[in-house]
Amino acid sequence: MTPSYDELKRIWTRLHHYNHLQSIAGWDQAAMMPPRGAPARAAAMAEMQGLLHRTRTDPRLADLLQRAQREDLDALARANLAEMRREWRASNALPQALVDAISLAGARCEHAWRSQRPANDWAGFLENFREVLRLGREAAQRLADDTGLAPYDALMDQYEPGATRVEVDRVFGDLQQWLPDLVRSVREHQSRERVIEPAGPFAKAAQRALSLDVMALLGFDFEAGRLDESAHPFSGGVPEDTRLTTRYREDDLMPSLMGTVHETGHARYEQNLPREWLDQPVAKARSMAIHESQSLAFEMQLGRSRAFAGLLAPRLRAQFGDQAAFEPDNLHRLMTRVAPGRIRVDADELTYPAHVILRYGIEKRLIDADIEAEDIPALWDEGMRALLDIDTRGNYRDGCMQDVHWAGGAFGYFPCYTLGAMYAAQWFAAIRVRTPDLDARIARGELGAVFDWLREHIWSQGSRWSTPELAVRASGEALNPLHFRRHLEARYLA
Amino acid sequence: MTPSYDELKRIWTRLHHYNHLQSIAGWDQAAMMPPRGAPARAAAMAEMQGLLHRTRTDPRLADLLQRAQREDLDALARANLAEMRREWRASNALPQALVDAISLAGARCEHAWRSQRPANDWAGFLENFREVLRLGREAAQRLADDTGLAPYDALMDQYEPGATRVEVDRVFGDLQQWLPDLVRSVREHQSRERVIEPAGPFAKAAQRALSLDVMALLGFDFEAGRLDESAHPFSGGVPEDTRLTTRYREDDLMPSLMGTVHETGHARYEQNLPREWLDQPVAKARSMAIHESQSLAFEMQLGRSRAFAGLLAPRLRAQFGDQAAFEPDNLHRLMTRVAPGRIRVDADELTYPAHVILRYGIEKRLIDADIEAEDIPALWDEGMRALLDIDTRGNYRDGCMQDVHWAGGAFGYFPCYTLGAMYAAQWFAAIRVRTPDLDARIARGELGAVFDWLREHIWSQGSRWSTPELAVRASGEALNPLHFRRHLEARYLA
Repeated sequence: MTPSYDELKRIWTRLHHYNHLQSIAGWDQAAMMPPRGAPARAAAMAEMQGLLHRTRTDPRLADLLQRAQREDLDALARANLAEMRREWRASNALPQALVDAISLAGARCEHAWRSQRPANDWAGFLENFREVLRLGREAAQRLADDTGLAPYDALMDQYEPGATRVEVDRVFGDLQQWLPDLVRSVREHQSRERVIEPAGPFAKAAQRALSLDVMALLGFDFEAGRLDESAHPFSGGVPEDTRLTTRYREDDLMPSLMGTVHETGHARYEQNLPREWLDQPVAKARSMAIHESQSLAFEMQLGRSRAFAGLLAPRLRAQFGDQAAFEPDNLHRLMTRVAPGRIRVDADELTYPAHVILRYGIEKRLIDADIEAEDIPALWDEGMRALLDIDTRGNYRDGCMQDVHWAGGAFGYFPCYTLGAMYAAQWFAAIRVRTPDLDARIARGELGAVFDWLREHIWSQGSRWSTPELAVRASGEALNPLHFRRHLEARYLA
Repeated sequence: MTPSYDELKRIWTRLHHYNHLQSIAGWDQAAMMPPRGAPARAAAMAEMQGLLHRTRTDPRLADLLQRAQREDLDALARANLAEMRREWRASNALPQALVDAISLAGARCEHAWRSQRPANDWAGFLENFREVLRLGREAAQRLADDTGLAPYDALMDQYEPGATRVEVDRVFGDLQQWLPDLVRSVREHQSRERVIEPAGPFAKAAQRALSLDVMALLGFDFEAGRLDESAHPFSGGVPEDTRLTTRYREDDLMPSLMGTVHETGHARYEQNLPREWLDQPVAKARSMAIHESQSLAFEMQLGRSRAFAGLLAPRLRAQFGDQAAFEPDNLHRLMTRVAPGRIRVDADELTYPAHVILRYGIEKRLIDADIEAEDIPALWDEGMRALLDIDTRGNYRDGCMQDVHWAGGAFGYFPCYTLGAMYAAQWFAAIRVRTPDLDARIARGELGAVFDWLREHIWSQGSRWSTPELAVRASGEALNPLHFRRHLEARYLA
């Protein structure tokens, strides 16, 4: 008899259903909704947000969670209960007034940022951002009080449960040791290479056909998902019906192609979460870093490999004719070109971590009140020079104002990108141990060894284990930056 | 001070937001959802259905409605309160067990019907349908007890508030007097006409372009709506974001073309409901017959007129080349051909009412328990012979088993179709009084006189008035079948 746990399961099933409607409405908002539908949609989704919040903060839950703790539960049910408790704690840690203030200040700052960024208006941005930062610090302190974590750790914990600055400092510190030198060596190495660009324009319909073809190659289940367009590509919908979006540029086919490969990694994780528990929190994707490890396993480990270039070549020729650029070696060079730049989202695999390390270093000091908002530009300029040898002085637009994260108040998210890239390298190292002839198989289009390993060790596990435990069970060790280093050296210096 | 009414308004605003999410999820289910998404969607929508029902049956509402009745409200607020009361009464009239039983029996009968109909299996259908009918009678009796209406009237009242069999008998009785003779005269008249069929195939993309072009001509606001595809065309979404669907047949362009004109009529009603009250029941579309009067004003009164054929001709030529079939006189003959047949949804403007009169006559006797389910086929055969001179004996598939309505338990809906056709004729008669040169204007593509009249008299009025009052305010008289007769005689015997 587990009456309290059973009642909690029913409540979380209800939350799952509510979230389904909210997710589909959100996908529709980005991919389908005509512009004049926006105010009514925003009001309807805010109503649902309120309902979700009321359900998660129902005072009965505290008692039910406590009673369930004493009931006779098996290991899976205990893991489920732990995830319920985590969601409940996250929803109840902040007083409603603070949640509302954060949401309002973030929305205001983000809205103004949309015009301040193109205008390079740092002073204007600062006026709104100071309040966002103040509230972010207050939230961090309250979350810290509630969880016993340090304030910045409590923020990271929202996205990557269990992540600590001690751990992130360890792996990013390692990375910082060798990354700048590696970038220099690779730049030197690549300066002698000749790369041919594909010749456009690339018709949208052909790019869409290519995307669908590559998604099929990557095992996307079209009976349980769709591909559409949106201004900002994302993977949305629900696990039972996963909705990817992309955006097509007629002058460049690579962004939509590699974007689709990336989002398909997210999508296959969602599509292969444990079906029998799908309405319970233990069946959800583990964390943002693990989610990113799936998209980057697809895009970086598999998608930009020489073997995969051989699979892309005939598909590109089928859509855009027989161009010299589509020769597999050239394609591979195209997909692995290293070019330090100011913009994170345009960065290549090798320089991307530098963008993340810079932001991580600044935001943890912001939350600790070790620095103030005014100090960001100087630290930014200094970091970009040290990490990528780029001068960003006076260019706020393509510098510290380029991301939406801080404007919207999302502190603690950035590390997930690079943790994900490192986990992806670790997963592929493990896959290669089990399947030594992996590259030959990929070259033949046999991707089963990749998918089977990910399904067995990541997808099917949902949130059953903590991230470190998942990593150990999957690969025999906790996060080890050596795999990422070896991967980069093998790919870029071979 | 109107605290109870204000509280009711807040509750109905919340219902409006919930309904928004449910509508978009329903549209997505029909137009976008991949097949394996179905079970999760059904569960999520059932959850929302339950939430909507709990909200509408909250015991606090009875008290609030009573108190609000005594508050100092203006005329519009009173009309709004009356609509709240109507919705509340409809949601509370039937005990939950009966609602569940009706839903279950209807779903079972409808599901079986999908294979029984093609198999012409009347005996099999009867087994499930007897229970659907039994529950329909019980619901009718309870609704009758609650409203003081006669049982069948109480069922019609769900779709067309205030409709009574006395009134429907009056107008349908009139129709029945002259319709069979008119059909015979028109058939005789048309037998001498030569009509050229457009030559296909008609590519889907060109049909879609034509549909969008015609929707624009008809004033559809694409900033607040979309056109997509679904197996069964409908007008869905929300007033702020109206979603039409159509279905394309490559061998025949008329169904999607006229279907789009029809659905655009529904859509413009929704898109032009009073914006400032849009989250309140008084702003909703008046009734099903009035909704149908808009789609039929567009499709039948305007869309199949000779003047409109002149507007369609160049648009058809632009998509499908210069065919003799697209000559306006031929197009008009094509759109007004009369051919009695067994299937309601394929019926032409002139014979459609016969299908409705037949069903109305049978279902009111079913609800009164004057006849039993077993008696339907004989009455059907007799009615079809008398009304359209068609032999339906033994053909249940294209006879009494052709519609989903009875299978699903929707008794009392059928009259709305023909009431809508009659109202549409009455609106156009009024428009012609105000704008005597209407046909010349339509021929020049000036449709403003139609839209302005409909906006002023129907769309902007929402549910402010009862249907009879709306009709009198709009056209100076209650429903008068003479307008429909005059329209048909003018169009088909001229």
